[in-house]
Amino acid sequence: MTKPIIEAAITELIMCSSSSSSSSSMARGAKSLCMAELGCSSGPNTLIVATEFVKIVSQLCHKHGHDQLPEFQIQLNDLPGNDFNSIFKSFAPSFHAQLLQELGSSAPYCFLSGVPGSFYGRLFAAKSLHFVHSSYSLMWLSKVPERVEMNKENIYIASTSPESVITAYYEQFQRDFSTFLRCRSEEVMGGGRMVLTLLGRKSESASSKECCYIWELLALSLKELLSQGLIEEEKLCSFNIPQYTPSLSEVNTEVEKEGSFTINRLQLSEIAWAACSGNGLCSPEYSKNGVDDGYNVAKCMRSVAEPLLVEHFGESVIDQLFENYRNILSDRMSKEDTKFVNVTVSMTKKE
Amino acid sequence: MTKPIIEAAITELIMCSSSSSSSSSMARGAKSLCMAELGCSSGPNTLIVATEFVKIVSQLCHKHGHDQLPEFQIQLNDLPGNDFNSIFKSFAPSFHAQLLQELGSSAPYCFLSGVPGSFYGRLFAAKSLHFVHSSYSLMWLSKVPERVEMNKENIYIASTSPESVITAYYEQFQRDFSTFLRCRSEEVMGGGRMVLTLLGRKSESASSKECCYIWELLALSLKELLSQGLIEEEKLCSFNIPQYTPSLSEVNTEVEKEGSFTINRLQLSEIAWAACSGNGLCSPEYSKNGVDDGYNVAKCMRSVAEPLLVEHFGESVIDQLFENYRNILSDRMSKEDTKFVNVTVSMTKKE
Repeated sequence: MTKPIIEAAITELIMCSSSSSSSSSMARGAKSLCMAELGCSSGPNTLIVATEFVKIVSQLCHKHGHDQLPEFQIQLNDLPGNDFNSIFKSFAPSFHAQLLQELGSSAPYCFLSGVPGSFYGRLFAAKSLHFVHSSYSLMWLSKVPERVEMNKENIYIASTSPESVITAYYEQFQRDFSTFLRCRSEEVMGGGRMVLTLLGRKSESASSKECCYIWELLALSLKELLSQGLIEEEKLCSFNIPQYTPSLSEVNTEVEKEGSFTINRLQLSEIAWAACSGNGLCSPEYSKNGVDDGYNVAKCMRSVAEPLLVEHFGESVIDQLFENYRNILSDRMSKEDTKFVNVTVSMTKKE
Repeated sequence: MTKPIIEAAITELIMCSSSSSSSSSMARGAKSLCMAELGCSSGPNTLIVATEFVKIVSQLCHKHGHDQLPEFQIQLNDLPGNDFNSIFKSFAPSFHAQLLQELGSSAPYCFLSGVPGSFYGRLFAAKSLHFVHSSYSLMWLSKVPERVEMNKENIYIASTSPESVITAYYEQFQRDFSTFLRCRSEEVMGGGRMVLTLLGRKSESASSKECCYIWELLALSLKELLSQGLIEEEKLCSFNIPQYTPSLSEVNTEVEKEGSFTINRLQLSEIAWAACSGNGLCSPEYSKNGVDDGYNVAKCMRSVAEPLLVEHFGESVIDQLFENYRNILSDRMSKEDTKFVNVTVSMTKKE
């Protein structure tokens, strides 16, 4: 769903910079293009957009008679605990092989590097990036907001959360997202593009079911552990998920406030919970084959939430927790139309 | 021993580029300096020279009244099997902490990245590097030379190696080292510096004892395994170490032939085998404390040669092999003055 937006951003980057932009390196005749994938993880998705980037630019160069392809720098960022070794040993060779297969002997130089660190701080040299992409990472806050003690047995914003909790979450999002934009505004060169997809919401209300329900059901699973005596109430009350799923207007507001980027596209998309297949890729067909949707969604959520849960509740309750979660998810998904909402924003760095 | 050469190269890079050089980014007022550590490994040595680089440049900037420090890009390269995760999780935080401690609040931005791949190919974007360093990596060839079947039970160039074997090794070194220089000549900007230290030799003869003896003793250890029936003769005869330890004039010849770099310094240094302490750092005092020199040198050689030996002879003989090696080393080191010879070359990329 976001592919056309990514393709448009890359195409505009190249086409616009070939004509008017003074600071874009292609326009200057420089020989290299640099992209960053923020929150790259280590798996089959790590290099998907990088592959598109190289392919689209190469095809555009051929189409417009540029014999000499630029060199590509692909900077892969995630937190220092990410498995960069796997990227370098397994996914980088497939990336190069795929480009060689698709572009043949005209495949350009692609220099991969791993960049460890939080994207809520500076990661790259000033004015060094032409294109930035991030998918499903920016809804993660830099930390759990302060002043959310009143959230009791909720683990995220919920219908029963007091207003002060919702405000604390929103203000943390504002701080983090504006920090993110300020850092990237240093690093992206004038005319450069940035496409971000994050979990978000349609409603203006941050306690809307569309964004909170998935966590409310995990809270239910935790309460089952509580009633079984497997975790303590104090532990449950002190656990909160460091995430915020903004609306289109909240994203728009922060971008305008920070002021360094112009928004080209800002759009919502929806994807059924059931589209989370077991192999980590989204495949709506997968659930048709009798595979349990609850199992797949629980596994998908486990892959993102397990480190936080283990750190707070310990390793020993995790299997039981996700067994509870799977059963609750299966039940609700059979009765309700459950969807994730995505916000995608495509921006240009002002000159 | 190489520290003064590194310090001089960095100082000249900054001082020369501030005055005359047109293509150096400091002279242009650009804000970032980029260095690459080639064959960085993952350990306490990985960031030693990077730390020096940042400190020396920062001190020079302060001394000359430049209020605004440049940003630093530190690119850490090694083969894809290197443990980049450990660098990012353990050594990168200490690096940042040390700079903060030594430079205080004026510590500049340092952006670390991991760059997987062989330095006998392109690794970085064109004209992107100001400073390149490599230590104890470039004596490793890209592969065992072809046409060394006549080397029999030798595993490296030895006094009994036929002339054709020595030629095959030397030609492989020439191909590899010139490929290395050609790749770096694309990547280092005009006026940029490169300091390389590699195992080498004083003598013009490639079968000189100073460079071959350490491997001849490993070959002796392998022959003990052969006599014990633990390895097969065919296996021993087909094993050769992909290394070449050049003389000063051989290094000089390749640099001049390639033509992109001017040599500023080219010098030999010697270090006793016994200086290989157990912790991977060189400490001449270490051997005074009754620790067995043979044990330390065997351990040091095991850390570099084990992967090659395991691949060829299998895991099961390795402990016995290095036990043999340790005993042989202890015996010889008590009777002879055994030293490694290092070649260090400091170069400037021509404009």
